[in-house]
Amino acid sequence: MNKLRIALLGFGTVGKGIYQTIEVQQARLQQLTGKQVEIAAIVVKSLKNHKNYNGHAKLTTDFQEVLGDKNIDLVMEAIVGKEPAFTYLQQSIQQGMHVVTANKEMFAQHGQELKKLAEKHCVQIGFEATTAGGIPVIATIRQLLQVNRVRKIQAILNGTSNYILTEMRMKQLSFSQALKKAQELGYAEANPANDIDGRDAYFKAVILCQLLFGSKADKARFKQTGIRDISMSFLDEQEAAGKRVKHLVTIAETEDGIYCDISPAALEPGHPLYAVEGVDNAVHLETDILGELTLTGPGAGALPTASAMIEDFCTIIGRPNAYSAHEELASIH
Amino acid sequence: MNKLRIALLGFGTVGKGIYQTIEVQQARLQQLTGKQVEIAAIVVKSLKNHKNYNGHAKLTTDFQEVLGDKNIDLVMEAIVGKEPAFTYLQQSIQQGMHVVTANKEMFAQHGQELKKLAEKHCVQIGFEATTAGGIPVIATIRQLLQVNRVRKIQAILNGTSNYILTEMRMKQLSFSQALKKAQELGYAEANPANDIDGRDAYFKAVILCQLLFGSKADKARFKQTGIRDISMSFLDEQEAAGKRVKHLVTIAETEDGIYCDISPAALEPGHPLYAVEGVDNAVHLETDILGELTLTGPGAGALPTASAMIEDFCTIIGRPNAYSAHEELASIH
Repeated sequence: MNKLRIALLGFGTVGKGIYQTIEVQQARLQQLTGKQVEIAAIVVKSLKNHKNYNGHAKLTTDFQEVLGDKNIDLVMEAIVGKEPAFTYLQQSIQQGMHVVTANKEMFAQHGQELKKLAEKHCVQIGFEATTAGGIPVIATIRQLLQVNRVRKIQAILNGTSNYILTEMRMKQLSFSQALKKAQELGYAEANPANDIDGRDAYFKAVILCQLLFGSKADKARFKQTGIRDISMSFLDEQEAAGKRVKHLVTIAETEDGIYCDISPAALEPGHPLYAVEGVDNAVHLETDILGELTLTGPGAGALPTASAMIEDFCTIIGRPNAYSAHEELASIH
Repeated sequence: MNKLRIALLGFGTVGKGIYQTIEVQQARLQQLTGKQVEIAAIVVKSLKNHKNYNGHAKLTTDFQEVLGDKNIDLVMEAIVGKEPAFTYLQQSIQQGMHVVTANKEMFAQHGQELKKLAEKHCVQIGFEATTAGGIPVIATIRQLLQVNRVRKIQAILNGTSNYILTEMRMKQLSFSQALKKAQELGYAEANPANDIDGRDAYFKAVILCQLLFGSKADKARFKQTGIRDISMSFLDEQEAAGKRVKHLVTIAETEDGIYCDISPAALEPGHPLYAVEGVDNAVHLETDILGELTLTGPGAGALPTASAMIEDFCTIIGRPNAYSAHEELASIH
């Protein structure tokens, strides 16, 4: 039986989730692709951190080994930070490999460039996992864009912020108490700045803007405020008025151009994102033909992210040449 | 420029929504498919009802004209009731045409047969519009099934029932008052039995069961109760206990086989479908890898249905040979 061979870049929690899911779902993936799906190599920063590893795939610190292997079909990247992720994906594409990434920071900055490069080299890029974790928001927007124009998006894209705001309101915790709890549970990093200052949501908002508006997104105006300065008394006031405070991303195209506001907002009970609590993410889409649609689900986590990345893999293997037509949609707004 | 030629079966509110949307979105569809998209013929029951029609497409009562036209690529069916819809689609498939349907009653009974026939004749069937209107639930389940097993579905699939229950609770109307209002607003038919006795939800539940479980769905056990006997005092009691009553579809695979329960249920405030009000539909999926996902949106209406059908058209034209692999997934549970 022919094999589909994957190289995995990064072997932290997400990388391990991918590895495990591909092992567990081997029968399903074989049935779908008609081939055995194998992780051929895993590129890590240091072998020292993986002394207990005893899997089949080769562990290496040398990305050039992956690049030199002509039998690798697709690269899955689950590294944190822009580099070396960007350089690795650029080189993989140039070698004719498809790529799938979960790296929002890298893709917010270099996504458009990588999409163009992929088109030039006739390969695909999957980036479902960069935005709203396991919620298939990229695939859904692509599907809707075939027929609809998306007028406005409102979204909760940072699960850590939503968790902190939910805990503060429901358990009467201070911001720092709720943050500490999020860190203890692994929802927030030791350095939580990316989450609580809105940077993580900003990366995802940029990726959505580029998906919706293509190169026009370059001129979008962004406003970014985190939840660091939210006090319990402010939440109490809003609750007394029947409202819940959420860290809201709003993207819309107006006569003055595209704007994207990322900031705390007090939502009324009838608002589609009012009931989204804890670490969940949600995306509310307003479209011209279909009307309004809301997707709610896990915004992060190793397995939801792995699921999104392997769905990308299946889509790419299922229709290797369908990418460009979809991306071009943004240009006919 | 080459053309993609569509025959439209039925020209009621949904048929007109399709016609209008294809006209309005012509530029977008051309960009996507690389071809001009044209409705070549519209098959109606009687010409008398369409005296004011002055569109480009030929209006005919003779389906054989469509069958005899070798240049028709795809048939879109928006007829009510099983016949002649089933016969028309069967014959279209045998002539090598792709088909897209919004007909839940027909597809619940004949869907599996049509899927097999389509596979034999190497054409595609789109049925996104049969279930939950504009919510892309079929596409999302297909995408998730690539990696996930869906353990359980809970859904609100009949917008009319949900509207009636919402009105009864919020405005203290009796069942018959709320039903009358739904009829006045066009949400319920003059004969509302399909909606209020749970038959409409049953058709959609059958289609979801078949998508999830393939031929195993033939043995699923169904239990069906409508909302006809729900009293205002029952809703008040539940509301006093903090609960809301919804007409709930539950599909799950247990050790005893597949069961599907369609009946009113009192939901707690934390339930993912608690806040789904009015004519909206929603589908909550529990999966093994990704976790839980909820989709909420318009469950009916001419434009949401048209959007779903044209999305099907785009998917089929974009990847004409990808159908079978997806459908086969159900068999590896």
